[in-house]
Amino acid sequence: MSKGFFITFEGGEGAGKTTVLAEIEAALKEKSYSVVRTREPGGIRIAEQIRTVILDIEHTEMDSRTEALLYAAARRQHLVEKVIPALNEGKIVLCDRFIDSSLAYQGYARGIGFDNVKAINEFAIEGYLPDLTLFFDVDPEIGLTRIKNDDDREINRLDQEAMHFHERVREGYKKVMETYPNRIKKIDANQPISNVFKDAMVEIDKLF
Amino acid sequence: MSKGFFITFEGGEGAGKTTVLAEIEAALKEKSYSVVRTREPGGIRIAEQIRTVILDIEHTEMDSRTEALLYAAARRQHLVEKVIPALNEGKIVLCDRFIDSSLAYQGYARGIGFDNVKAINEFAIEGYLPDLTLFFDVDPEIGLTRIKNDDDREINRLDQEAMHFHERVREGYKKVMETYPNRIKKIDANQPISNVFKDAMVEIDKLF
Repeated sequence: MSKGFFITFEGGEGAGKTTVLAEIEAALKEKSYSVVRTREPGGIRIAEQIRTVILDIEHTEMDSRTEALLYAAARRQHLVEKVIPALNEGKIVLCDRFIDSSLAYQGYARGIGFDNVKAINEFAIEGYLPDLTLFFDVDPEIGLTRIKNDDDREINRLDQEAMHFHERVREGYKKVMETYPNRIKKIDANQPISNVFKDAMVEIDKLF
Repeated sequence: MSKGFFITFEGGEGAGKTTVLAEIEAALKEKSYSVVRTREPGGIRIAEQIRTVILDIEHTEMDSRTEALLYAAARRQHLVEKVIPALNEGKIVLCDRFIDSSLAYQGYARGIGFDNVKAINEFAIEGYLPDLTLFFDVDPEIGLTRIKNDDDREINRLDQEAMHFHERVREGYKKVMETYPNRIKKIDANQPISNVFKDAMVEIDKLF
């Protein structure tokens, strides 16, 4: 078993996840914890190259299962090269998105199938599940409004489509929580960000 | 169901697989069949790029599971872009290596685990198993002698190591055959190549 703690952060768009993650990192460092904050591909050469293949806008012929396998491959390499060594050194690893994002987005919302995407990701992580996962649960309408630059803009047709998709992502996360009830804690991300941060810290303090 | 036939060719080094494959292609074309001969990544842009990441000699840090996921991703894209469309046009697709190579080499001989590699490859191929797989079974000592440029050279230490590995690959293929007993036909590849070709054609004629 590793000596550190592996904590992942999950949620839909506009949940405030990344902002809160930075605040948590600062708070933990202030308490003199040794913290590694990361997100895939995390500067890992092979994972970065895989990411380049995934994100190339010319690759319109990319099949969704090819993409899911590439994400799992990048995840594997990032885990082996960066996350596991840090955990073995006793560090706290804070990771912005991990396996649950693939399950909610690709497995559920994109329709590849939850169990199918779970199978390839379990191959990739080989039992290295997080010690704690914070799921920032936000109402898609609130989330979408948060990420808009112009708050006055009315919600248009594309936003409506986005909202429908993010409803599906949210349902996907619900299924993730049912699958891993002990590991994942839901944080109400409809609150003001300061309260979201406080609730997240409560869960992290419980872990230590 | 597709109208064509999907035939894959498997086996260890020096089994004569690629030579026989070319002869079969010629024989089928002579009989006026429409034939596509391919091997992964098969000129498919995304699959070629994935292959580049796998084969980069600088990538000494590549984890074996990352590699297995990348092979599965390249396989998926090649299947979707090249194999399935050809089968749907009623063509005979002859493919040099497919899922069984991953099972025998990575799953078994490299020790990732047969069922683990099977799981990610089943995700990749989504039920598109070959109609027929010819496994060219060769004694590693005979196979290794075939691929040597200088037949007189004695078998050295490195060859001994290679032989041990290819024994494991052969055992892997044995396990593959137990898993898919109906699909895979074993061809005795210890015979002269002309006989290997004849035996292979007998199995293909049975299929049509």
